[in-house]
Amino acid sequence: MQRRRFLAGAVTAAGASALARPAIAQTTPEVRWRLTSSFPKNTILYFGADYLVKRVAELTSGKFQIQAFGPGEIVPALQVLDAVQNGTVECGSSASYYYLGKDMTFGFDCAVPFGLNVRQQNAWLYHGGGLDLLRQFFKNYNIHNIPSGNTGTQMGGWFRKEIKSVDDLKGLKFRCSGFAGQVLSRIGVVPQLIGAGDVYPALERGAIDAAEWVGPYDDEKMGFYKVAKYYYYPGWWEGSAQVSTYVHLKEWEALPAQYKVALEAACADAAGWMLSRFDAENPPALRRLLANGAVLRPFSREIMTACYETAFQLYHEIASSNPQFKAVLEPWLKFREEEYLWFRVAENSFDNFVYSQSQKKT
Amino acid sequence: MQRRRFLAGAVTAAGASALARPAIAQTTPEVRWRLTSSFPKNTILYFGADYLVKRVAELTSGKFQIQAFGPGEIVPALQVLDAVQNGTVECGSSASYYYLGKDMTFGFDCAVPFGLNVRQQNAWLYHGGGLDLLRQFFKNYNIHNIPSGNTGTQMGGWFRKEIKSVDDLKGLKFRCSGFAGQVLSRIGVVPQLIGAGDVYPALERGAIDAAEWVGPYDDEKMGFYKVAKYYYYPGWWEGSAQVSTYVHLKEWEALPAQYKVALEAACADAAGWMLSRFDAENPPALRRLLANGAVLRPFSREIMTACYETAFQLYHEIASSNPQFKAVLEPWLKFREEEYLWFRVAENSFDNFVYSQSQKKT
Repeated sequence: MQRRRFLAGAVTAAGASALARPAIAQTTPEVRWRLTSSFPKNTILYFGADYLVKRVAELTSGKFQIQAFGPGEIVPALQVLDAVQNGTVECGSSASYYYLGKDMTFGFDCAVPFGLNVRQQNAWLYHGGGLDLLRQFFKNYNIHNIPSGNTGTQMGGWFRKEIKSVDDLKGLKFRCSGFAGQVLSRIGVVPQLIGAGDVYPALERGAIDAAEWVGPYDDEKMGFYKVAKYYYYPGWWEGSAQVSTYVHLKEWEALPAQYKVALEAACADAAGWMLSRFDAENPPALRRLLANGAVLRPFSREIMTACYETAFQLYHEIASSNPQFKAVLEPWLKFREEEYLWFRVAENSFDNFVYSQSQKKT
Repeated sequence: MQRRRFLAGAVTAAGASALARPAIAQTTPEVRWRLTSSFPKNTILYFGADYLVKRVAELTSGKFQIQAFGPGEIVPALQVLDAVQNGTVECGSSASYYYLGKDMTFGFDCAVPFGLNVRQQNAWLYHGGGLDLLRQFFKNYNIHNIPSGNTGTQMGGWFRKEIKSVDDLKGLKFRCSGFAGQVLSRIGVVPQLIGAGDVYPALERGAIDAAEWVGPYDDEKMGFYKVAKYYYYPGWWEGSAQVSTYVHLKEWEALPAQYKVALEAACADAAGWMLSRFDAENPPALRRLLANGAVLRPFSREIMTACYETAFQLYHEIASSNPQFKAVLEPWLKFREEEYLWFRVAENSFDNFVYSQSQKKT
């Protein structure tokens, strides 16, 4: 592949004017791909992939067409990584923490408990060496990964009764995502793995005590407030949660340069679009949830601190037996401390002040 | 123009296969534009425009080329809006608050004291009706505006002595941006308008008492820490500060659809790039400034509150005599309250907790 690209480059440089027409014909071929998404078709996470594939088509005058499919149409929701790795599809859209069972290193591409918020994650990816590290890792799976969106900080979930202390968590059956489950199980929670469609009935009949999903906009559609009114925050296991586009490595390498740029720019554009959509939809959804009886509660300091300490113990344990995890964790921890030093100064003090003035008559 | 575009569309629809070659030739013409920037060529703000024009070229196989110029190369820094409005250049890159003297409504396209942070600004622009309102306003200046970057929350500036109370502000000669100056002058500050190159010597010899610029990365280059060591935060007049690309309206309308999309996607891509660059560069710059003797100080609650109340009085006064300002202010205030309701729950409580744990042994 490298050799062919080198030769193509040499031809273009040496004979651009003489071979103008054939060169153009070669660089804008018709390309048809399929994208399989992990996310239901009525979610912002899916809308982001939809926005992305439309942008790619528009940017290439319809020459590069990607058709998006929902979970189950080609492969199930949690088999997107495998489908791209095996070449079943050319590309996919997913949340990398679905694949923690293969390797905990996937967490850094999506969400790590008490990790980076969206802006810090993007700073790490694009200017802190993060994306290079992640791409090295994804090569093991024949995948070229492109960040394509984020949810922002998620909520901590819906609880049937109030949770005030670490003791209240003992034995609690909580439907939650993978990394959170590993932390919480160490302080007595019994994590539950339940498919999206089964969560509501399980919560309703008390088979589980609590469930977390995303944030107000998505949670409202699931109707959890009707059966578990205590709505806890923050979702400390998802200070940000990134969506990635996975591209089969050989397909990526075979793309003309212009299409690579079109796909990258479309992913960057979609990332901004998705985050701002979440940030615009969540506020009115939260207001509606409160009007419908949801009761907001912060996780207590005791719970937050216990989970924080447990999480970092876990990271160091994983790093001691997983060199790939360690190779990302160490620079990530260093970068994270630097970001916190700065963000707590200007950004956080501004936010804290204006929020304290909120609802004041202006 | 409308008629010609309609006819072109009809031809493409009716005879696409028969006329394939001419149609392609018409839709990807060679386009050469000039972009004039308000920002010095060694700033991230300028690098963003540079990233943008490279992306546009890559997305169009070099057919749509925009050449970027620094301040003074075509027009001075603060005449970018006029240059685009008059058609001196096809497009420009600027901060809209430079044009508050023409109309205070420009503030909403860049920064308003105690306004939206970056994510809230983007939510407002893309999913809260903000960009539509701003584009209506910019049409008065023959301009199609495209958001293209942001600095995040800026710092409050460099002060030769400590400022503890509103009384300490009386008579203070402060070099600051336009909207801040209007607020601060009402509580006794004497705002100073001084060109970038003259700020350091004025501060050094005590002709002014304080000066604000951007944030750690840019401020470090200016060397202010050597002559005014108290570094105040936050820059409440710039909770976020947006950079926009101005495109002459007729040039925009004449662009082929594919080039419009290329420019929009490149601006969105550049916006993410710029913000993450600031967020990655500011932390080590802050650390270096502290090592070189800068002393961090928060503005006191008394000062923040006095400025907050003064700012909102000012907004309502402006709105009472400027219907364009009022048309943006009212929905903006409503959107802002909604955003604060949500952001203070998940995002802000997450940030506050992790920052409180920062530098803890993990």
